[in-house]
Amino acid sequence: MKIKQLIGDRFKERPADCVIDSHVLMLRGGYMKYVASGIYSQYPPLRRITRKIEQIIREEMDALDGQEVQFPVALPAALWQESGRYDTIGSELLRFSDRNGAPLVLGMTHEEAAVQLVREYGQSYAKYPFFLYQIQEKFRDEARPRGGLIRVREFSMKDAYSFHTSQEDLEAFYQRCLQAYERIFARAGIPEVISVASDSGMMGGSLSHEFMLLTPVGEDSIALCGECGYRANLEAAECIVENRRDEQSQPLTLTGTPGAHTIEEVCQLLHLPREKACKAVAYEKETDGGLVLLFLRGDLEVNETKVTNFLGCGIRPASLTEESGLHPGFLGPCGLPDGLTLLFDRSLENANNLCCGANREGFHYTGLDLRRELGELRYEDFAKLQDEGICPRCGRRSISISRGIEVGNIFQLGAKYTEAMGMRYLDREGNFHFPLMGCYGIGIGRLAASVCEARHDEFGPVWPLSIAPWQAHLCAVRAENPDVKEAADRLYGELQAAGVETLYDDRPVSAGVQFSDADLLGVPFRVVVSPRNLREGYCEIAARDHSFTQKVPLAGAAVHLLGLI
Amino acid sequence: MKIKQLIGDRFKERPADCVIDSHVLMLRGGYMKYVASGIYSQYPPLRRITRKIEQIIREEMDALDGQEVQFPVALPAALWQESGRYDTIGSELLRFSDRNGAPLVLGMTHEEAAVQLVREYGQSYAKYPFFLYQIQEKFRDEARPRGGLIRVREFSMKDAYSFHTSQEDLEAFYQRCLQAYERIFARAGIPEVISVASDSGMMGGSLSHEFMLLTPVGEDSIALCGECGYRANLEAAECIVENRRDEQSQPLTLTGTPGAHTIEEVCQLLHLPREKACKAVAYEKETDGGLVLLFLRGDLEVNETKVTNFLGCGIRPASLTEESGLHPGFLGPCGLPDGLTLLFDRSLENANNLCCGANREGFHYTGLDLRRELGELRYEDFAKLQDEGICPRCGRRSISISRGIEVGNIFQLGAKYTEAMGMRYLDREGNFHFPLMGCYGIGIGRLAASVCEARHDEFGPVWPLSIAPWQAHLCAVRAENPDVKEAADRLYGELQAAGVETLYDDRPVSAGVQFSDADLLGVPFRVVVSPRNLREGYCEIAARDHSFTQKVPLAGAAVHLLGLI
Repeated sequence: MKIKQLIGDRFKERPADCVIDSHVLMLRGGYMKYVASGIYSQYPPLRRITRKIEQIIREEMDALDGQEVQFPVALPAALWQESGRYDTIGSELLRFSDRNGAPLVLGMTHEEAAVQLVREYGQSYAKYPFFLYQIQEKFRDEARPRGGLIRVREFSMKDAYSFHTSQEDLEAFYQRCLQAYERIFARAGIPEVISVASDSGMMGGSLSHEFMLLTPVGEDSIALCGECGYRANLEAAECIVENRRDEQSQPLTLTGTPGAHTIEEVCQLLHLPREKACKAVAYEKETDGGLVLLFLRGDLEVNETKVTNFLGCGIRPASLTEESGLHPGFLGPCGLPDGLTLLFDRSLENANNLCCGANREGFHYTGLDLRRELGELRYEDFAKLQDEGICPRCGRRSISISRGIEVGNIFQLGAKYTEAMGMRYLDREGNFHFPLMGCYGIGIGRLAASVCEARHDEFGPVWPLSIAPWQAHLCAVRAENPDVKEAADRLYGELQAAGVETLYDDRPVSAGVQFSDADLLGVPFRVVVSPRNLREGYCEIAARDHSFTQKVPLAGAAVHLLGLI
Repeated sequence: MKIKQLIGDRFKERPADCVIDSHVLMLRGGYMKYVASGIYSQYPPLRRITRKIEQIIREEMDALDGQEVQFPVALPAALWQESGRYDTIGSELLRFSDRNGAPLVLGMTHEEAAVQLVREYGQSYAKYPFFLYQIQEKFRDEARPRGGLIRVREFSMKDAYSFHTSQEDLEAFYQRCLQAYERIFARAGIPEVISVASDSGMMGGSLSHEFMLLTPVGEDSIALCGECGYRANLEAAECIVENRRDEQSQPLTLTGTPGAHTIEEVCQLLHLPREKACKAVAYEKETDGGLVLLFLRGDLEVNETKVTNFLGCGIRPASLTEESGLHPGFLGPCGLPDGLTLLFDRSLENANNLCCGANREGFHYTGLDLRRELGELRYEDFAKLQDEGICPRCGRRSISISRGIEVGNIFQLGAKYTEAMGMRYLDREGNFHFPLMGCYGIGIGRLAASVCEARHDEFGPVWPLSIAPWQAHLCAVRAENPDVKEAADRLYGELQAAGVETLYDDRPVSAGVQFSDADLLGVPFRVVVSPRNLREGYCEIAARDHSFTQKVPLAGAAVHLLGLI
């Protein structure tokens, strides 16, 4: 098509409120338009990209014997009540009522709908395994949409569901799907995406992986071991600590620490390293507001995902009122009021000679020995694995923390949904069982933005050929020159006849405007017909990734380009 | 793929609550599953059909230089407030709020979103015309979903929007789009679809057409002229009446008509033909509940669409209470209380010697002469054109009323949305104008169901090749016979290698079960490998539409089938 017909504007100015490059470039290049917080419309270039991504995904899903289905966007609340998620998921799940007052939700994922679809079909073991997928809009009412298409509220997603009669079969399929995902990301132009172990979160189930594009602007933190290859989302990474106990326990001693509230201030005042502090962090449960006090070593941070999983409910930072009898900045494990949930990280197990708050304004203790003061306690892993920390797999101090964008995820769900929703099958011997499920997601728009994030320069995206909105971008420089126009028109016709997806710029604008638009649209091959080249009977073919620039005889240019493609 | 892997069940029993054949067959054939009122999931056969329909539509839209975009499903209420439709559309528009209380709607059509997308782009006349489309889920909170996919609440739709700088350009494009629609329906297998003039309803604008599949089970009524080819939705068809005035007006006479409430009863009692009655119908306005009394000739029916358009607001049948001072069954134009909106159909213009209610329980008047009794009145067209009525175009008494399913619609919207939403462009002379819009819709699922309705027999759908879920349905009859299995397996491999989309039935079930499943899946060509045919080295190819059955040598069967396709 001709660029002068292409709807959407391209511009130079950096849009306000954009913090990542893909967001900037996809606005500047006329790929999408803001409609509401976390809600965008797609202009034709982006729609062309997302359709190509959809096609790659369809091919890979079909290669796994995937069957494409379509679930509703608006789902009856009753389905989500069956699984129990209507109550356990927070306000990300958008709930509303229809004209008759019947409660509905906007689907943010479709495990319930998948079980509803095949509950009757899957009554005999002979029907298993089977695998279905859809590509469709979803809605997740994010508290803080950001980063353009990286974290939106409405998004198009490929979601897939597999059903099995044994854990072995689920695991074998899960591996095949993991490999299909690697092929998808490689075909979409970002083979560097890695899979990492992840936390299953609201999906439930036992084992899950996320596919991460490592980039400093990513929202997720990933622990990587340089020695053994261990990879996990920080949310799911075990934190190994070496606990050292001093030979001699000093007595518990009350010490005035007026004005010292933070671990840093207290440790400085008491001349102790942070490893010798017992830090307290206060939360309240989202369910009933009950207070939770978590104690861990002063040099560590809380991994709130682990706390949530342990408690089985969401948490938020507590706002401690006077009525609670607690003194922020001076919280400690000794002499607390009743009725609190107390959690101890395993970094404190066996530790002694610690400082801690004395639960009294302006005072801390030194010489804390938890075992001596409080007896036997239950210690769990609630801490964040840290940069240069110990690898949970190989045990070496070889962990580095990177940032990443999650471009896909896969989950072994087990029988969580089938059991809750009463989906059963009869085995060969006539016994009933709940089938085991896996689920597998890829966000289409986020994948497009991730490719842009990974493949761009300061002038625009550098789209891989596989998902580029067009294959060739033909510029007629000084199109007001009839010879240029005629030669470029002819080449455009030849490219179209050869089946090359071509965007043709024959606008009477400067070469600079044409080239900056070409850079913003990121088409892999730019073909330039200009007065100077034309005199020699050549056109110029330049790769958007700057890997080459060639002069090619005009007569054979279409064939030559077809060869490049 | 193999039918034994195909998810979804096929069954013989007629499902409850189905009134039309396509609904019955698409449930019995495992095409779709009920999720909630007017909300369905699609099994793979239907998804394959809808994807083929989408592809046909994309090709035809692209041929009109259509640019595919994607709008959000969830739209901010503010957009609909800009156009004014947030207030004028009733409860079909599903309104809800997000977690922050921001009001959203579920898009039921996307005129507002289209204007929002191109409002800045289209600031110069040089950018026009342009045409964009999307294919996406929509939600319309219908009061009475029914007929399977014919009237649902959630549906996938191709919606398209064109923008123009002159009425001529809009009209020329509108004609091209009308022809593209005819090609789409022909390619989808129902060339008999006709375009009819329609009422623009909530879309606004001046001219619109609907594309109708004529069928007795259709929800719409269509007026067709057998003489001149006039075609219109009954909602939009002008009702021409021949008013005859008796030479002599009799005096207005009060007459006791105890117990006679209906026109039929009154006319029988008074020995008058129904044409000599002045019928009253009472409505109330949906906006303020104000009472509307409409008078028309006793042999005619009210066209409520015309009333709604005239009043500029929705109406519903009035429930007359005693307080209103009105007497149902005895309503007439003389002696009414103040404060009512009175409407007169033009069938009453000039009429005399009518009977009418006397606004008094048990009494009617005879000898009504509206001009004499009430002076000059405004008469409008509020009546339904009737079977054997007068054609509004050629004037002959040649109208027949048929039923139809609306499978698409196109509208000339004019500047309704661009003006309301402040979208302007500068012309060559530097003057601002509002661009003119057209919009163009096709419901994907409804089209699939309509093809089924038009192309089926008692055993199942007869899908046209262009949208059939598969091209060939291969049955290995007595697949437990190793020779049959081997020959059928080989043929399946050959068909796949030849690129024929094949559904393969190698289940160890009876030929009867295989064939009834094949009928329900409606694949155009059924290929049977059976012990008997195999002995002679043949297979049997039968067309689903019963147009032929051929015996074909097994060795050349794949090539032969490719020729048929």
